[in-house]
Amino acid sequence: MIRNKCAEGIVSSQEYADGSVFCFKGNGYLCEEQNLFAMNNELELRWNKIRSCMAEQGADAILLAGNVDLLYACGRIVSGYFYLPSEGMPVLFVKRPSGLSGDNIFYIHKPEQIPGILQERGIKIPKRLMLEGDELSYSAYMRLSKIFSTSECLNGTPAIRQARSIKTPLEIELFRQAAAAHAKAYSGISAVYKEGMTDLQFSAEVERLMRLEGCLGIFRIFGQSMEIFMGSVLTGDNAETPSPYDFALGGAGLGPALPVGLNGTVMRKGNSVMVDLSGNFNGYMCDMSRVFSVGKLSEQAYRAHRVCLEVQDRIAGKAKPGVACEELYDIAIETVTREGVADYFMGTKQKAKFVGHGIGLEINESPVLAPRIKQELQPGMVFALEPKIVLPGIGPVGIENSWVVTENGVEKLTLFPEEIIELG
Amino acid sequence: MIRNKCAEGIVSSQEYADGSVFCFKGNGYLCEEQNLFAMNNELELRWNKIRSCMAEQGADAILLAGNVDLLYACGRIVSGYFYLPSEGMPVLFVKRPSGLSGDNIFYIHKPEQIPGILQERGIKIPKRLMLEGDELSYSAYMRLSKIFSTSECLNGTPAIRQARSIKTPLEIELFRQAAAAHAKAYSGISAVYKEGMTDLQFSAEVERLMRLEGCLGIFRIFGQSMEIFMGSVLTGDNAETPSPYDFALGGAGLGPALPVGLNGTVMRKGNSVMVDLSGNFNGYMCDMSRVFSVGKLSEQAYRAHRVCLEVQDRIAGKAKPGVACEELYDIAIETVTREGVADYFMGTKQKAKFVGHGIGLEINESPVLAPRIKQELQPGMVFALEPKIVLPGIGPVGIENSWVVTENGVEKLTLFPEEIIELG
Repeated sequence: MIRNKCAEGIVSSQEYADGSVFCFKGNGYLCEEQNLFAMNNELELRWNKIRSCMAEQGADAILLAGNVDLLYACGRIVSGYFYLPSEGMPVLFVKRPSGLSGDNIFYIHKPEQIPGILQERGIKIPKRLMLEGDELSYSAYMRLSKIFSTSECLNGTPAIRQARSIKTPLEIELFRQAAAAHAKAYSGISAVYKEGMTDLQFSAEVERLMRLEGCLGIFRIFGQSMEIFMGSVLTGDNAETPSPYDFALGGAGLGPALPVGLNGTVMRKGNSVMVDLSGNFNGYMCDMSRVFSVGKLSEQAYRAHRVCLEVQDRIAGKAKPGVACEELYDIAIETVTREGVADYFMGTKQKAKFVGHGIGLEINESPVLAPRIKQELQPGMVFALEPKIVLPGIGPVGIENSWVVTENGVEKLTLFPEEIIELG
Repeated sequence: MIRNKCAEGIVSSQEYADGSVFCFKGNGYLCEEQNLFAMNNELELRWNKIRSCMAEQGADAILLAGNVDLLYACGRIVSGYFYLPSEGMPVLFVKRPSGLSGDNIFYIHKPEQIPGILQERGIKIPKRLMLEGDELSYSAYMRLSKIFSTSECLNGTPAIRQARSIKTPLEIELFRQAAAAHAKAYSGISAVYKEGMTDLQFSAEVERLMRLEGCLGIFRIFGQSMEIFMGSVLTGDNAETPSPYDFALGGAGLGPALPVGLNGTVMRKGNSVMVDLSGNFNGYMCDMSRVFSVGKLSEQAYRAHRVCLEVQDRIAGKAKPGVACEELYDIAIETVTREGVADYFMGTKQKAKFVGHGIGLEINESPVLAPRIKQELQPGMVFALEPKIVLPGIGPVGIENSWVVTENGVEKLTLFPEEIIELG
């Protein structure tokens, strides 16, 4: 079942009733089934969740082509298409990589071959077919809708994102593994700081620590306008700089080609620096920010930091299934207003209008903890909670952790000291 | 004209007739005009190129929303839209960042406000409007086409990509700057190798070298299915592993969440390792691969490497304006066939069907050096040429450099020793 390279250095593995094995290696995971669909226990859970969301809109089938959706629905990324009918086995259509085999796997050169193969297999052409309307390009969507000319095509992105928002036990376990690796990497941060470093030099060392723990590096985001490298390291007033992207904080970046994050600033005494790199060790975008200081900060900074910790504690105390996202956001605003720091909360010149966001295979999943969001928490949701304050002349303070919604509340996944850590 | 942070540490700058300044700082560039459209000499060149491509299809205007197209057409990325009419000044519609100002810059909350603002400014609603059909999501495209309900909308992606394929002198200069930084980072590679390293440990050190030279890290690719971290470091038989992505070589990756590139292999004596990281120091995706060896390789490897260098030399000797891409590809196939290494050329189990590709703000621009591509080289095109061979039991050999097409031939941008470099 397991290829050699996977057998070497396994640290833990899980065997399923059907004999398939999902093994964890180092800080990542390697899933190497001979039969792609052998990992049925897990994948069937996911398929059934997608099917419930399809049923709400009366769809007979969904055809997935986005990498993240493929990874979710068939456990691997291919250049190709995954066809999931509301009933019966799904079919995987592959262009690349070569060498896959299985009962329901077909190699194709172009998507126009799909309906013919379905018909040969006795699979009915769907009446209502979901396509990833928010993820496929206009051209790709139109091409597929022409191929399925007798089907009514509708946007399936909300459905697949809804399914993905409730994590399976295995997905939560993968988050735990990622969180542990993430914390281990952050535990090396103090040791790599050297006086007089720029934020870029400092970040390069932290990125290296992350990679050595097995971080995949890639930062997956929903939405075509969002982009960033591995995350952001913001120090001093750079944290105030507005960016075009809808992250919690901005930063000027190194130039106009990527106007977000570090900007080459020298880390100066009395400045704070926030490390907010994504912990993508196995596909799941674990999210954790910690604040460091160059020497001591002013008392105002420690006070503002404690306000953020209080926001976190109050929200975590209130969050449980059935609570609406807006209620949690309101707790943040109420707290920072009472403490007189609302003007600095989630940025100064430009403010992020959320205090938390769902995470999964992408950094920005459902739900969003933001004003006017009536959506309620459900068990299995995983989200990042990131109350942050930017103080002019000092820099960013605050906290970010990843949380899973349990039956009765929420549980913190990212376990690492939360006070401001003094460097040097 | 130049903000403080830009004035600090400028290494060269260029002043234009209109008084705008484009300054190079360190290894990146910072373009900080008070007036966004002040850099007219450069931007007008670009606008006129886009307009010629628009004219070929009778479009009156193009509305750009993709980050890379915005960076190209207005020198910066915004969350918003850039409206370029076939005649007259363009208009920038901005949602984020806050704080921009200029005569033709308007803040909006949603794209539905665009037609009203155009009409207020006396700008006619276009008859034929280009939208980025291969880049916008289906949903985003449909939304814009509904807003411009009286316009005929057509796919503008081929036009903007055609315009972008011929670089301006400034873009070529930016490529030169990137190539110099790229080579400087690679010059540190030998020193970071330690015996017994895994490919991940080795790569983490090389990535750090790249970042310390100012590499932005982000890897921009055209097409929704393509993704990779900073590039690939492939050693031994991992280089043979097919991947779902259409890069020159594959690699298993660290797990199913990113099945490309390094896989955690220990670098063993007699193995080659190819470093192919992208040199994105200023937005321009400089591309360069070099081969290293752990100890000595077998004679077969050096011979295969020389074949790749010969392919490069023969193609570079032939390449000039007017030569069709397929002719250049054919030279590669003819050479590797004559030398008896065709079975190993561009992969073994899965082969890439190209030997070079245009580069620019994305790694895969026009033209592509591939079979049956009749497109001819033109002055100002910049491409990566990457003849590579994978030898079972040894690893990858070959070369990749970035080249600019001149009036009479091609010029190599990435200057760094091309022989196999022995590590340790």
